[in-house]
Amino acid sequence: MQSVVKRTPFHEWPCSVARTVDLLGDWWTPLVIREAFLGATRFEEFQKGLSIGRNVLTQRLTRLVAEGLLERRQYQDKPRRFEYLLTEKGSDFFDVMLALLRWGDRWLDKGAGPPLLIRHKPCGHVGRAESRCPKCDQPLRWNDVDLEPGPGLTPELAAGFVATARSRRTKKPVLSVPEPDATEP
Amino acid sequence: MQSVVKRTPFHEWPCSVARTVDLLGDWWTPLVIREAFLGATRFEEFQKGLSIGRNVLTQRLTRLVAEGLLERRQYQDKPRRFEYLLTEKGSDFFDVMLALLRWGDRWLDKGAGPPLLIRHKPCGHVGRAESRCPKCDQPLRWNDVDLEPGPGLTPELAAGFVATARSRRTKKPVLSVPEPDATEP
Repeated sequence: MQSVVKRTPFHEWPCSVARTVDLLGDWWTPLVIREAFLGATRFEEFQKGLSIGRNVLTQRLTRLVAEGLLERRQYQDKPRRFEYLLTEKGSDFFDVMLALLRWGDRWLDKGAGPPLLIRHKPCGHVGRAESRCPKCDQPLRWNDVDLEPGPGLTPELAAGFVATARSRRTKKPVLSVPEPDATEP
Repeated sequence: MQSVVKRTPFHEWPCSVARTVDLLGDWWTPLVIREAFLGATRFEEFQKGLSIGRNVLTQRLTRLVAEGLLERRQYQDKPRRFEYLLTEKGSDFFDVMLALLRWGDRWLDKGAGPPLLIRHKPCGHVGRAESRCPKCDQPLRWNDVDLEPGPGLTPELAAGFVATARSRRTKKPVLSVPEPDATEP
C-alpha cells in the first residue's frame, strides 16, 4: 500500500500544522483514530470498521501507540490479547475530527445530509462544533484573524514570517462560490 | 514523490472525515492550503513558502482548483500570469487548520511554545480556537458527546452503525498520559 518516499521532514518545520500532518502520515491514520472515537478498541473492531489489511492496520496502530495517541493494554491472558485505548493526547484529537467532519458535512455532502450527528450530552444539543474565540465568543473565520509569529519561532524565522506576510498582505480576497451541487445520490 | 496505490475510494464512504481525508490526499495539500491562509496567491509564493517541487505544486494547485477550494485567475497579460485565490469553500477550511494547529501546539510542541499566534481582530484576543457547543457554549470533548447516525446514512448503514456502537459502548475509557516532554530544543 505504502511506497511513498518522504523527502521533507515536516515534523521539523516550525509549524504545528506541518507537524500534525507529518504525524498523520497517510489517509489511514486519521481513519484509525476515527474508529477509536467510534468505540473500537480491539484489533478486529478496527479491522472490521475500516476493511483494512492486517499489516497496514498493525503499522498504523503501532505508530499511534509510539506517538502516544493510543495505549496498548493486555485484556486477556490465554490467549494473550491486547486492546488499544485512547490516551488524553489521542482523545484531544477529537477536536480535529470535529473540524474535518464539519467541513466535509458542508462541502462534500452527497445530498443526503450528514452521515453522523454529534449530540452534546450535557445539554442535549445536536449539531456541529464551531471554532469560536474564547474571549468574544464569535466564530473564528479566516478573514477575522491575523496570523502572527509566536514564541516557537526563532527571531530570524519570525522576521522572515513578518516580511513574507507583509509582501502578501495586500491581496487577500475571499471569493464566493455557490454551495456545492447535490448531484450525486 | 507520489507512487501511492489508492485501493479504497474513501470519498464514497458515508463519512465526512473519510471524504475530507480523501480530498486532501497527501501531506502537501493541507500545507498548500496553509500557505494560502498565510497570504500566498502566486505560484512562486507557494513554492518559496513550501520549498516544494514545481510539478508537485502544480498537481496540488490543480487539484485544489478542481475541488473548488482555490480559484485560478489571470492577473497579468504579458506574459500571462495566474494567481490562486481562496474560494469560500477553501476559506472555510480554516476551521480544520485551526484544529490541527491547536492540537499540534499542545502535543507536538518542541518546548519553545507555539510557532504561530492567532489574533482575533474584532476583539483583539490572541489565543487558540476552541470547538464549543453552539447551544451551551461548553467545549465539545469526546467524552461529552454521543455520535449518532445522521440523515446521510441509509437505514441499513444506520442500523449497522448503532449495532456496532452498542457492541463497543461498554469500554470507552480515556487514559491519562503526562503532558509531552519538552526534551527537544
